[in-house]
Amino acid sequence: MNDNTIMQKAADNIRILAVSMVEKAKSGHPGGAMGGADFINVLFSEYLVYDPDQPTWAGRDRFFLDPGHMSPMLYSTLCLSGKFTLDEIQQFRQWGSPTPGHPELNVERGIENSSGPLGQGHAIAAGAAVAEKFLEARLGKTVMQHKIYAYISDGGIEEEISQGVGRIAGNLGLDNLIMFYDANDIQLSTECGVVMSEDTAAKYKAWGWNVIKINGNDVDEIRKALDAAQKPNGHPTIIIGHTMMGKGALKADGTSYEHNIKTHGAPLGDGAYINTVKNLGGNPDDPFVIFPEVKKLYADRQAELRKIVAERHAEEKKWAEENPEKAAEMKEWFSGKAPKVDWSKVEQKPGSATRNASSACLAELAKQVPNMICASADLSNSDKTDGFLKQTHSLMRDDFTGAFFQAGVSELTMADMCIGMMLHGGVIAAMGTFFVFSDYMKPAVRLAALMGTPVKFIWTHDAFRVGEDGPTHEPVEQEAQIRLLEKLQNHKGQDSVRVFRPADAQETTVCWEMAMENTETPTALIFSRQNIADLPAGNDYTLARKGAYVVAGSDDPFDVILLASGSEVSTLEAGKELLEKDGIRCRVVSAPSEGLFRRQPADYQESVLPTGSKIFGMTAGLPVTLEGLVGIGPNSRIFGMRSFGFSAPYKVLDEKLGFTADNVYKQVKDFLGK
Amino acid sequence: MNDNTIMQKAADNIRILAVSMVEKAKSGHPGGAMGGADFINVLFSEYLVYDPDQPTWAGRDRFFLDPGHMSPMLYSTLCLSGKFTLDEIQQFRQWGSPTPGHPELNVERGIENSSGPLGQGHAIAAGAAVAEKFLEARLGKTVMQHKIYAYISDGGIEEEISQGVGRIAGNLGLDNLIMFYDANDIQLSTECGVVMSEDTAAKYKAWGWNVIKINGNDVDEIRKALDAAQKPNGHPTIIIGHTMMGKGALKADGTSYEHNIKTHGAPLGDGAYINTVKNLGGNPDDPFVIFPEVKKLYADRQAELRKIVAERHAEEKKWAEENPEKAAEMKEWFSGKAPKVDWSKVEQKPGSATRNASSACLAELAKQVPNMICASADLSNSDKTDGFLKQTHSLMRDDFTGAFFQAGVSELTMADMCIGMMLHGGVIAAMGTFFVFSDYMKPAVRLAALMGTPVKFIWTHDAFRVGEDGPTHEPVEQEAQIRLLEKLQNHKGQDSVRVFRPADAQETTVCWEMAMENTETPTALIFSRQNIADLPAGNDYTLARKGAYVVAGSDDPFDVILLASGSEVSTLEAGKELLEKDGIRCRVVSAPSEGLFRRQPADYQESVLPTGSKIFGMTAGLPVTLEGLVGIGPNSRIFGMRSFGFSAPYKVLDEKLGFTADNVYKQVKDFLGK
Repeated sequence: MNDNTIMQKAADNIRILAVSMVEKAKSGHPGGAMGGADFINVLFSEYLVYDPDQPTWAGRDRFFLDPGHMSPMLYSTLCLSGKFTLDEIQQFRQWGSPTPGHPELNVERGIENSSGPLGQGHAIAAGAAVAEKFLEARLGKTVMQHKIYAYISDGGIEEEISQGVGRIAGNLGLDNLIMFYDANDIQLSTECGVVMSEDTAAKYKAWGWNVIKINGNDVDEIRKALDAAQKPNGHPTIIIGHTMMGKGALKADGTSYEHNIKTHGAPLGDGAYINTVKNLGGNPDDPFVIFPEVKKLYADRQAELRKIVAERHAEEKKWAEENPEKAAEMKEWFSGKAPKVDWSKVEQKPGSATRNASSACLAELAKQVPNMICASADLSNSDKTDGFLKQTHSLMRDDFTGAFFQAGVSELTMADMCIGMMLHGGVIAAMGTFFVFSDYMKPAVRLAALMGTPVKFIWTHDAFRVGEDGPTHEPVEQEAQIRLLEKLQNHKGQDSVRVFRPADAQETTVCWEMAMENTETPTALIFSRQNIADLPAGNDYTLARKGAYVVAGSDDPFDVILLASGSEVSTLEAGKELLEKDGIRCRVVSAPSEGLFRRQPADYQESVLPTGSKIFGMTAGLPVTLEGLVGIGPNSRIFGMRSFGFSAPYKVLDEKLGFTADNVYKQVKDFLGK
Repeated sequence: MNDNTIMQKAADNIRILAVSMVEKAKSGHPGGAMGGADFINVLFSEYLVYDPDQPTWAGRDRFFLDPGHMSPMLYSTLCLSGKFTLDEIQQFRQWGSPTPGHPELNVERGIENSSGPLGQGHAIAAGAAVAEKFLEARLGKTVMQHKIYAYISDGGIEEEISQGVGRIAGNLGLDNLIMFYDANDIQLSTECGVVMSEDTAAKYKAWGWNVIKINGNDVDEIRKALDAAQKPNGHPTIIIGHTMMGKGALKADGTSYEHNIKTHGAPLGDGAYINTVKNLGGNPDDPFVIFPEVKKLYADRQAELRKIVAERHAEEKKWAEENPEKAAEMKEWFSGKAPKVDWSKVEQKPGSATRNASSACLAELAKQVPNMICASADLSNSDKTDGFLKQTHSLMRDDFTGAFFQAGVSELTMADMCIGMMLHGGVIAAMGTFFVFSDYMKPAVRLAALMGTPVKFIWTHDAFRVGEDGPTHEPVEQEAQIRLLEKLQNHKGQDSVRVFRPADAQETTVCWEMAMENTETPTALIFSRQNIADLPAGNDYTLARKGAYVVAGSDDPFDVILLASGSEVSTLEAGKELLEKDGIRCRVVSAPSEGLFRRQPADYQESVLPTGSKIFGMTAGLPVTLEGLVGIGPNSRIFGMRSFGFSAPYKVLDEKLGFTADNVYKQVKDFLGK
């Protein structure tokens, strides 16, 4: 236990650095960082266990920041911990610096998640806690005994997703999850009381959490709370820390600037800044300094950590010697490499719906990939993730030997928790729901895309052929929408999400193969509800690996290319038969992934879609879904949906909406002017 | 009070009709409908006040169904109430029928909201409750005294959005909101206990709700709860009704089929269906029958209602005579017509950010449109909805004289509540947040688009020029994403959302004019964070009403068209100056709305973008954002974003990412091969 005077000094040091970063950048959020400094200082200088020499150590405690705008607090603390230099934090919010406005995933430097959109960070933490429990159940307590810390603010508590996290973490009894709620009563535009008068403690108790209320600026109370939270008791812990926004801040006139909305999202401003830094014991002319006693505090902690982890590593080594198979598994799982899967075991029934074909793949994955978790938002028997479930059982309070995550009806929480599982490491996560509900998940999909977290999204019921459930359940714009992320690159220059919509059962297997091989970006898999006729015999499905390809049985030469993804390919095949009777020669192209196709060599692309060809596209989405492949102009025509869908049996809809062989014939004849 | 034997008979009648609809359609959800029948029967036969002869009466109680899959229950009850014929409910889930799988907005028939995506329905109800309070504060209790009923299921309680609704309804003390929670403990894939072990009653108490727990199949308990809920006490009410899924259902073997997951989402199946209908007192050979005593029950209620509303109408008439101005206002507000606004009062400062230009419009709207509510998700000082706020004050518990809705950090809840306000009638709702967070709102935007609810979305911070906040806060794909709904038509054949991204301050005013005039679909307004140079002097901004137009100062003839929306138009203008020095003649086209442009006569479109023209597009979104206007091919080039944004001052980003006059010059020269 350190002297509280030194702890105060260290927290003030964090405050000085934080406000100075914001002041220098001329933008950012100083007030919250000042209020939270005491907690984060106690956590990092006395509790958080990590290996100073091996940042990616699997056994480290994880710290997930939810309110990314509090980055100055995190960067300052990580600067004290030696993860950032004083120079680097002075480059806060500047081009190319490692200290962007909101933290961006960088485990080497202690940033476990990209954050900013409120609420998602604590869902990610809850997912990491699930992963820790899951791995503990397989590998044992020696190597999996760490804690997951989350830091949340008023905005995160207000966000809808807190309902999902509160419910699930409580239900699963995630007692390895310790969340600090920085309750400073101030948000961007108002005091919290204007929008929130709930009893937050009672709410979390109702969800089955341990609730501890403290003064979040009091070192001893913070310690007491963290001590209490260390002991597993079957419940996640929330420490509600009442903190002072802008703690220690003074205005230009020397009066208090604490508890003031103006300190939330803007620099303190010249006079206030100078007075504040002085008040905190710093030098406004030379603010980017680590005080000697603070340097010592953190150096001592590093030394202490080295002792702690040396013991842990010794125990881990002994465990590995005694459990060589588990040790090998653990190494493999944490390598992030794609698992070895014998795909020949997957048996596809002819004419299956692709959701069922996916189910067949999932059944094999459940058998062959012991570190995979599959989730569903209360639709397992409909999105057919039950193919996975039937080979295992659900994760439950006190029993994490299963591998199926029952998320309940909360798509966004499910998505972020699955992302958190993979950020934790050691786990591969997939999750299912209806494609139309991908709308709910978009904020999480985007975050995964930005971080390059290779979760697998399983979206079934891909079009109006949902049928009777009607327009609220029928995707139209969703395929185009999600493919925007295939067009959007991440910071490594990769397509930020890989999207597949396979044409039949066999193509589904190939797409699942690619999804499992993709360890660098999220993969989206879009499947049909209804049965689909298989592509012609002899089709070379390995060509699906090129994103788009010529389907077997195509005519060569051809008069027109018929192009689609998903079940529309088989509709085109049926249309082709009619057209051929009229002597119109057709090439059929299946395009499960436009993005992947655009990554192929130009000559391959040209060989599939030769310049100057007439191309007819069909999509159960908006026509724009296919414009990137079919083009716009006299050589291009796309038949797609123009409006929301309708409630009726899907075969009726096929007729009414024109998704039939007859209409392909009619449209193509008209297109060709024949 | 009716005889409970009759009430039981009526509930059984609803059950018989509901299971028979599903059986006939061969798809649907019978179990929940059977469990909820007792509650809805009591509500509709004894409590819900409406005018049988004037379905759109402003003073009616509203009933909002959250779990749309329970439509058989609602249709059956509305059949008893005379809103649907027995023939019509036999067309359940068929093409063109008024009884689609999930209810679609149809006030004439008693359907107050389209539903299906769980959770949104009760948020809509909460919004309607706000509207009722807001109008009561302006018009008085005589005309605004009705109740808002919501019906929610386990899935809705689990959904993230329940956190937003729970918090806000509690905080605002919406004691005109009465929500029945049909707790049947069964969801689609599991029993609820697998995913939920919370104390829901305690949770709602923590949010400040009245909580009443009952047996939801017991008529007297239902009555007692509804009686208690009628009395305003400063809190919304949740009646937690424990109900029996599949109440009265028998299997083919005659044993109980109650409390069984299989009854959730599929027909009961031949033998079970026959046994069940018999068990409920019906005839499986002729199940679509209203029992005589039930017919009488509902006829008596209709007679009673006619008496009740006759009194109410008399009071309303007296009120109207005594308050002619208010009565005229009320009539105008509930007409749904666009309000009269004197836009000449809006003063725009040259070179404003369009968010500030929007603020100037909002200030006038606050002054001139007394039935308008503006909301923000804790960003009013940043999304500049504070232009509205400064002219009024926030809605508060016990004081609804203000017109600003502080939603807190919960974008989806805000959106659905604003939709609910407009569904209630009498109110125009607008709401602001950052454009990147439109992702959170997508499910609500889609629902508003489907229903044609003319809410106004105000999305600011429209591109990477958010700057220092970095990629989590910088929209890239969002403009293309939201414009998908401009391409998607509603069932009336209209573009389902109208989207505007104005080029400067003056164009912002015109876009706001169009937004307010649009009474048939939602409007999205996308605004810049940063200041924007005005378009050239003499620009005819009224041309923005055509969606895209030639900006003043364009060359005629021209060598190339430079096309953009938003602030990129002024970047093109700056590039044009450089190109003209090289003798390259440029036409600049501002395209705030591609959708609106495509609704113009072909000759106008041709006059702006003549066939064969070289077109260069610039967008701070993905290139695909402009492909519909610029085209794909040798005459087309689009310079846009390819990746997520970065954290840095926006002027640095302009340089680094190529959004400068110099780069326009370079790109266009290269494009023209000069």
